[in-house]
Amino acid sequence: MKNKRYYLTPGPSELYFTAAEHMQYALRNDLGSISHRSKQFQEIFQFTTAQLRQLLNIPSSYHIVFTGSATEVWQLLLANCTEQSTYHFVNGSFSSRFYEFAKELNRNAQKLEVPFGEGFDISEANIPAETEMICVTQNETSAGTCMPVEDINTLRKEHPEALLVVDAVSAVPYAPIDFEQIDSLFFSVQKGMGLPAGLGVWIFNDRCVARFKALKEKGQVVPPYHAMDTMLKNAEKHMTQATPNVIGIYTLGKVAEDMNRRTVEVIRQETVFKAATIYGLLERHTKFKPFVREEKHRSQTVIVADIIDEDYTAATVIEKLEAHGIVVGKGYGEFKDKQIRIANFPTHSKEIFYQLADVLETL
Amino acid sequence: MKNKRYYLTPGPSELYFTAAEHMQYALRNDLGSISHRSKQFQEIFQFTTAQLRQLLNIPSSYHIVFTGSATEVWQLLLANCTEQSTYHFVNGSFSSRFYEFAKELNRNAQKLEVPFGEGFDISEANIPAETEMICVTQNETSAGTCMPVEDINTLRKEHPEALLVVDAVSAVPYAPIDFEQIDSLFFSVQKGMGLPAGLGVWIFNDRCVARFKALKEKGQVVPPYHAMDTMLKNAEKHMTQATPNVIGIYTLGKVAEDMNRRTVEVIRQETVFKAATIYGLLERHTKFKPFVREEKHRSQTVIVADIIDEDYTAATVIEKLEAHGIVVGKGYGEFKDKQIRIANFPTHSKEIFYQLADVLETL
Repeated sequence: MKNKRYYLTPGPSELYFTAAEHMQYALRNDLGSISHRSKQFQEIFQFTTAQLRQLLNIPSSYHIVFTGSATEVWQLLLANCTEQSTYHFVNGSFSSRFYEFAKELNRNAQKLEVPFGEGFDISEANIPAETEMICVTQNETSAGTCMPVEDINTLRKEHPEALLVVDAVSAVPYAPIDFEQIDSLFFSVQKGMGLPAGLGVWIFNDRCVARFKALKEKGQVVPPYHAMDTMLKNAEKHMTQATPNVIGIYTLGKVAEDMNRRTVEVIRQETVFKAATIYGLLERHTKFKPFVREEKHRSQTVIVADIIDEDYTAATVIEKLEAHGIVVGKGYGEFKDKQIRIANFPTHSKEIFYQLADVLETL
Repeated sequence: MKNKRYYLTPGPSELYFTAAEHMQYALRNDLGSISHRSKQFQEIFQFTTAQLRQLLNIPSSYHIVFTGSATEVWQLLLANCTEQSTYHFVNGSFSSRFYEFAKELNRNAQKLEVPFGEGFDISEANIPAETEMICVTQNETSAGTCMPVEDINTLRKEHPEALLVVDAVSAVPYAPIDFEQIDSLFFSVQKGMGLPAGLGVWIFNDRCVARFKALKEKGQVVPPYHAMDTMLKNAEKHMTQATPNVIGIYTLGKVAEDMNRRTVEVIRQETVFKAATIYGLLERHTKFKPFVREEKHRSQTVIVADIIDEDYTAATVIEKLEAHGIVVGKGYGEFKDKQIRIANFPTHSKEIFYQLADVLETL
């Protein structure tokens, strides 16, 4: 029997330690077979959204719907709630692709772009008055950078007219985002929530709905699949437009419940502690250093290390860690050979982080 | 411990009898954690598409990609491969929604519509010469009707210029569709394939790709999520645009392999046999009759029965069957009280059909 490998990759990642058990319960209890128009499914939908509301402190006035992925939500937000002009904070591959989606939809997409590994000085953003949507990637998984929550709140204060939307992939449930300061947030489940991939969660408020309705009235063609009105009409009945990933929705609710028992505050404290352990080690290591220089822009959930020893590549480091049963990610894109990326999600225990630190020390 | 219930509902339905085992293997072997950019994922993608090619006899020149659902593919086909004019055969809720999607995308959508429970005389279709896409729902899950494969082939012969696309939800793997006579086919996995929902499969040929490219060159805005070029570019590397339902893709390949061992021919013979058992019984029953009058339009995979006894409703029949551990579906929409729908998929054994027949006899 092969040894257990722990995935500290930044998504997909190690499953939350209770996830497989919940999926097996779902399989044993026919949740793969029940109708998505049944009362049983409605109860699952209701349970999962209630647990998410508690975990992420989502106001009751905000709507929660399910999609195939977070990537899908980029398009849904743009197609449903914008007509012409968007503004993007771009500092890595995912924020860049969100921006590219807007361009492909023929929006006049503006951006503030800084290199991989850097955060934003938001006062440098030249956001046009007519901007309909400001798009923030709170945690840039490709580069290990984050936008501090205070910056998001400042954006809201300075641009109250625009919809402020937050890509929270790999930020959830850690990032303490204040929903009252934003209009929409979305994520996929295979990062911090620790589920197998194949499900996205999209949260939005009535300002988004009003914007959607105004655009429809003006005659804008909104693609009908997962269009906001259809999603809402179904969500009000605790249902979905098409047959959804029922087992994923069930498991998400149960994992969120498990996290709620542990409390999100404890999860946050542990996340900060584990991140500090690794960043501290990288600071004093002879072969590594933290990629992100500015502490306030360092992601707590995706830690990226530059390899500064000429004899080491990402491949050699990854191989050495794998010998100890620890799987980390390589750098993204052009950084793939000289960086490693380490996920720090709720499922990753302090013990596995101590072990990771021990092995890194010996390199 | 509660008794096992068998889901003979027309989707989601009883899982294929090996599906849960494959999912458990996937969970034990970290397929929920592996990167969707890894060699391991590429091998899964390749395995699954190879097994599907064998099962459905898909030519090597046809592309296979994965989506969130079959509903999503309605939009993808329309948005990627049409500009103005589509033609739809509508005889139930799903074919009608495909048509509505075209209208919502501002296509000039024409249709031949017949009532629920009726098939088409395709010679009555008045398909305009400029039609870009003919949309056929081979098996109308809501009504239990099918379009004979010969009719599909006739449509191709008479309208060789239009793209001919087939919604094969609840038809796969039974329907012996000749891919050389069509341009695209799609389905979701929670029907005949017997998997938990949350995955769609889209198959298309180079005529679709050429059409997509021509429209792009003309400046058509194609929504970027799951756009055909991005899907193709990734599929060539055995990858997907966004993090997909990896466990679903793996399980689909393993279930298809299991079906290939049994052979699709045996599955087809058994499907016809089981359907004949129930249709025969309905014909001679005093409380039921087959909803679909014309034998050639009777679906082999979704059998719809009219309840003709005034003392019976769908709810009472369903309750009586559930007492024997058999779950069937109620009628769709306005037929919900006076019809039952019975799925006849590869996972449903002859034994469970004998049992169903026995119980129906006693009513």
